[in-house]
Amino acid sequence: MEKPMILITNDDGIAAKGIRSLVAVMKKFGNVVVVAPDKPQSGMGHAITINQPLRLNKSDIFGDIQAFSCTGTPVDCVKLGIYEVLKRKPDLLVSGINHGENTSTNVLYSGTMSAAVEGAMEGIPSIGFSLCDFDAEADFSACEKIIEKIIEKCFDRLIPEGICYNINFPKLPFESIKGIKVVRQALAYWEDKFDKRIDQFGKPYYWLTGDFGNHDPGENTDLDAIKNGYVTIVPTQYDLTATKQMKEVENIFK
Amino acid sequence: MEKPMILITNDDGIAAKGIRSLVAVMKKFGNVVVVAPDKPQSGMGHAITINQPLRLNKSDIFGDIQAFSCTGTPVDCVKLGIYEVLKRKPDLLVSGINHGENTSTNVLYSGTMSAAVEGAMEGIPSIGFSLCDFDAEADFSACEKIIEKIIEKCFDRLIPEGICYNINFPKLPFESIKGIKVVRQALAYWEDKFDKRIDQFGKPYYWLTGDFGNHDPGENTDLDAIKNGYVTIVPTQYDLTATKQMKEVENIFK
Repeated sequence: MEKPMILITNDDGIAAKGIRSLVAVMKKFGNVVVVAPDKPQSGMGHAITINQPLRLNKSDIFGDIQAFSCTGTPVDCVKLGIYEVLKRKPDLLVSGINHGENTSTNVLYSGTMSAAVEGAMEGIPSIGFSLCDFDAEADFSACEKIIEKIIEKCFDRLIPEGICYNINFPKLPFESIKGIKVVRQALAYWEDKFDKRIDQFGKPYYWLTGDFGNHDPGENTDLDAIKNGYVTIVPTQYDLTATKQMKEVENIFK
Repeated sequence: MEKPMILITNDDGIAAKGIRSLVAVMKKFGNVVVVAPDKPQSGMGHAITINQPLRLNKSDIFGDIQAFSCTGTPVDCVKLGIYEVLKRKPDLLVSGINHGENTSTNVLYSGTMSAAVEGAMEGIPSIGFSLCDFDAEADFSACEKIIEKIIEKCFDRLIPEGICYNINFPKLPFESIKGIKVVRQALAYWEDKFDKRIDQFGKPYYWLTGDFGNHDPGENTDLDAIKNGYVTIVPTQYDLTATKQMKEVENIFK
């Protein structure tokens, strides 16, 4: 039987520690090809590059694993990976491991998760992995063990069609992690602030900052489960239609 | 009674024709402030700028309307508009009018729609408007008339909490438009291709292209309604949880 073809990307850039962990795990399961951004692309969301061309450069950063750094966004990497590098759809697409959580509404800002969402749109089983630790030197050893279990457990029935998985790991040693929970996205959001400063020419500039606040009292959420020591899986869709509110809106416009 | 405060942005940039049309309509309804990108930002999705500072520059492009061009993305414009320009949440956020359709899954790539989604996350009634015509000189006169009707009809009960509207106009003269339909996002997608060429140094570069294909046989979709001459309203949410598949995924991981 032919080994599965696995495409790996991320948003922290090809040189990040997290993607090395993901490559180390995934090469046990199939033929791995990496197409990842040549620089950090955190916060790029589902951005694609349409007004300028893209470059792909071979990289030997992962030893004998075929790898390319790309000048574009994480979603660009997925598209180039499928249509120019592999010239086929991979059997599995994994993105990460992200340095920092992609819980709740962060899924919309996250390049890591947008790459997985793009995979789902292409009909490819796709997973985004994130560790709740923004440190460039974060310890991914617990993630590696759990990712191996997740992939082992269900390679053949991994992901229902039309969705991808958003998987977040608490910042805990392996022994302290309580298990895996399938949960919904918490309805939390950023309370944005800008750090306004004056440059050397007397002109203002603004740098985005803020606090992430959880205003969702529900229990079955990613934020709640992570706080309690669980790895979280949010089944994630790309259809943004607000199905629940359809009738209400129809009544407004009839 | 105080006039409503209306924040306007787009993704085609502050100098685009479409945003001028939107300003012309919206100033009839309240105090308009514009914060829009200083250059085209199509395809930027929900990207935010976190690794560098942003600039805001006053613009007199709309005459006596307060306006700022911003070095960031459409979502950056919304955040700066609220927290640095207005220093309050506006009563209404409108984005567009986009040069080109934002139907179906294009909502994920669209800076115009991501600005409206960001508004919804902030609890602001928010609408993204798009005309199915990518021409820089597109005729927005029919859009202007219909936007006025939409805003007039329902200023006080415009948008249920937690969602925004994705409104697309067919490329038709006003007289030929059949009406307004509330519909779901079609499950269509791009069949991507890259135009691969060789540069003057003998190295390849890749430029994203492709065909947009509708594989959704449903009738109650934006693509179907636009084809039949309707203006479409898709109630659009920011919660990506795949609620329908929760049980199935719980069974996989139990």
